Amino acid sequence: MSTPPLPPPPLGVLGAGQLGRMLALAGAPMNLRLRLLDPSPLAPVAGLGELLTASYEDEAALARLAECPVVTYEFESVPVAAARRLAERTQVYPPPEALEVAQDRLLEKTRFQQLGIPTPAFQAVDSLAELEAAVSQLGLPAVLKTRRLGYDGKGQVVLQHASQCAAAFAALGGVPLLLEQFMPFQRELSLLAVRSTSGETRCYPLVDNQHEGGILRCSRAPASGLTPALEQQALGYAERLLGSLRYVGVLALELFDVQGTLYANEIAPRVHNSGHWTIEGARTSQFENHLRAVLGLPLGDTATLGPCAMLNAVGGLPGAAAVLAVPDAHLHDYAKAPRRGRKVGHVTVRAPDAATLDARLAQLEPLVPFQR
Amino acid sequence: MSTPPLPPPPLGVLGAGQLGRMLALAGAPMNLRLRLLDPSPLAPVAGLGELLTASYEDEAALARLAECPVVTYEFESVPVAAARRLAERTQVYPPPEALEVAQDRLLEKTRFQQLGIPTPAFQAVDSLAELEAAVSQLGLPAVLKTRRLGYDGKGQVVLQHASQCAAAFAALGGVPLLLEQFMPFQRELSLLAVRSTSGETRCYPLVDNQHEGGILRCSRAPASGLTPALEQQALGYAERLLGSLRYVGVLALELFDVQGTLYANEIAPRVHNSGHWTIEGARTSQFENHLRAVLGLPLGDTATLGPCAMLNAVGGLPGAAAVLAVPDAHLHDYAKAPRRGRKVGHVTVRAPDAATLDARLAQLEPLVPFQR
Repeated sequence: MSTPPLPPPPLGVLGAGQLGRMLALAGAPMNLRLRLLDPSPLAPVAGLGELLTASYEDEAALARLAECPVVTYEFESVPVAAARRLAERTQVYPPPEALEVAQDRLLEKTRFQQLGIPTPAFQAVDSLAELEAAVSQLGLPAVLKTRRLGYDGKGQVVLQHASQCAAAFAALGGVPLLLEQFMPFQRELSLLAVRSTSGETRCYPLVDNQHEGGILRCSRAPASGLTPALEQQALGYAERLLGSLRYVGVLALELFDVQGTLYANEIAPRVHNSGHWTIEGARTSQFENHLRAVLGLPLGDTATLGPCAMLNAVGGLPGAAAVLAVPDAHLHDYAKAPRRGRKVGHVTVRAPDAATLDARLAQLEPLVPFQR
Repeated sequence: MSTPPLPPPPLGVLGAGQLGRMLALAGAPMNLRLRLLDPSPLAPVAGLGELLTASYEDEAALARLAECPVVTYEFESVPVAAARRLAERTQVYPPPEALEVAQDRLLEKTRFQQLGIPTPAFQAVDSLAELEAAVSQLGLPAVLKTRRLGYDGKGQVVLQHASQCAAAFAALGGVPLLLEQFMPFQRELSLLAVRSTSGETRCYPLVDNQHEGGILRCSRAPASGLTPALEQQALGYAERLLGSLRYVGVLALELFDVQGTLYANEIAPRVHNSGHWTIEGARTSQFENHLRAVLGLPLGDTATLGPCAMLNAVGGLPGAAAVLAVPDAHLHDYAKAPRRGRKVGHVTVRAPDAATLDARLAQLEPLVPFQR
C-alpha cells in the first residue's frame, strides 16, 4: 500500500528570514506547516518549514508556492509582480496592493493624504532643479529619501541648508526621490493592527520605539503616557488604511508623535520588528495573529500581559546565562551568521510595573550587542 | 574551503513524543538544537530536532546521543540501563536514579516513606497468599497495582471485597505487584518543581487535575482554595525529593488531597501533562525551565499569568476555528495520528478570573474530543 502524498502546506510565505522563522514557530504548536521561498540557502528556518531556495521571480518556485491555498509574505521588498502572479492562482494576503503602496513612499504618502491621515508634507523629486524647488516650497530642515528600498535609515539624507541640495542629490539621485518636511517629533511610535478575512480588526497598544543610527534598538509596550486621544488617532488611521487596502493580516504603522498629534511615517504590510515583544508580552503574538488572519481563523486577544520591552541584538548575540539571569527575560536567536549591522536576535523582558521594567532594561542593555 | 562540521547539539533526548516535541519548540526560539532518540519513525518532532530512529538499547544510537554534552529524557519508561550507559559517557539529567525510582512503585513509595512524605500505606505482593495477607493488614478498599509500567490508569484494580483477590491477582499477577490503601481523596493535585545544577529550586503553583477513566482530562492552575499550609506541604515534599535524588530538571509530583493533608501518589521525572498550561499560563514554561535547568542556565519565573486551564484532546482534535473563537484559547496539535485513547493535542485557556475561566471551559469542553 503506498502512502498518499501529503497535501501542500496550508500556507506559503515569500521570504524566510527571521520573520518567516517566527511565523513558523508560531504555527508549529498548531502543527501548521509552512512552505517558504527565499533566495538564500542560509535562510534561518531550517527544519521549521519547507524551504524553497530560489529567486522571487523563479517560475517553478512560484508554482510550488501557488499550490498552497494561501500565500503571505514576510519581506516587503519582494517583487510586486511575483505577488500579483501568485494572486492569479491562489489567495495572497495581505493583498499585493498593500505591498505596492508600502514599497513606494510616494504612493504611501499619497494614500495617507487621501485617507485624511496627517503625514509630513512631501514632494516627488526627480532632478536637482525639482529638489531646489521642493526645498523652497517645504522649507528646511527636510529629509530627502529614495522612493523605494529604504530601510534601517538607509537611503535618506537630512537637509539643513539649501547649499546641501547638490551633495544630497548626488548621493541619492539617479532613482526617484521624495523630499519630506522634517518633523520635530518627540518620539516614534508604532501601531500593530491585524484584520481578519471577515473584516474584524484588532490593535495592539501603541509601542514606543528608540532607534540608533536608523536601526531599531528598543521597543516598549505600552508606550508611556498613552491617552485615549492618542490611541483614538492611531486606531482611526489604522482602520482607514486597513479598510482602504481590503487588508488581511498584520500591518505595522510607524508614527511620529508631535506634541500629541500623530503623523504617519510609513507602513509595513507584514509582521514587524516593533511587535516582537508580543511573543511573550501579549495574549496572542503578532505572528500567531497574522497566521490566524490569513488562514481565516478568529483573531486572538491583543491585550498585553503587563509592561514589556524588546531589545534588538545587532551584530552579535548576548550570552544566554547573563540574559536569563534577569527576571522574566527571554532570549531569541535567529540562527543567522552575525555581522555588523545585522539583526541576529532579540531579548524580551516583562515586569510588574514600569519602574521595574526600567531597572531590568538597564541590566540588559550592556549585555545585548548593538554593533551597527 | 570546506565547511567545518557542525558540533553535536547541546542536548540529547531519550524519547521524541509530544513532550520531546514541546521541548524542541521551547528551545527553538533560542536556536537550541536537540538530538532525539525514539523507536518510532513517526515520532512527532519532524524537523524540530534531529531524530534518531532506533531502540533505546541500540548501541550506535546511544553513542550518537552521548556526543551531546547533556542528555535528558522525556519518557519515563526508557530502560534505566540505557540512561546509566549514557551517564558513563556524558551528563544525564535528571540522574538515572530518578528514573529508577519512578519506574518502580515499591522504590518510589519507599522513598516517600524514608523522606517522611505521607503516602498511602502499601505492601509488595508477589503471590495470591501475599495479596490476601496484605488485604487483611491494610484493609479495604485498596488498590492493586503493577510495580512497573502502569500509566493512564492501566495496570491497576480497585478491591472492594476480599472475595475479589483471586480475580484481581489473575488479572495483574505474573509481574511484581503492590497493594495500596485506597485514599478517600477529595481531589488530585500535582506540583511541578524544577531544580537547577546549582541546587536552586522553583515550583509552579499547585494544579488541580481531573481524570476520566484514568486519563487526564483537565488541569487547572492555580488549584482552587489553595492555602499557605497546603502549599507548604507540597513544597516541602518536593524539596526533600529533589534533594534526595540530587535532581536537575523538572519533576512532577502527583498528590492526593485528603481533607487538607497531601499524600504523595507518584512522581514523574520529566516534564508532565499537568504542566502543559505553563506554555501560555506561566512566565516561563515547564519546557523552557527544564531546558534551562539541564543546560546549567538560570531558572525562569514560575509565576502564573492568571487563572489558566488545559483540556487534553484524546482520540481526535477539535476544529481550530471553534477553539480559537473562545477568548484567549490556544490550540496544540501534536502531529500524531489520532486513535482512541491517544493524547493527540491539548487546548489551553486563560481568563482574568476563575468564574470567566469556568465559562470558557464550559464553551471548550464540548469542542475538545475525549475518546478513550
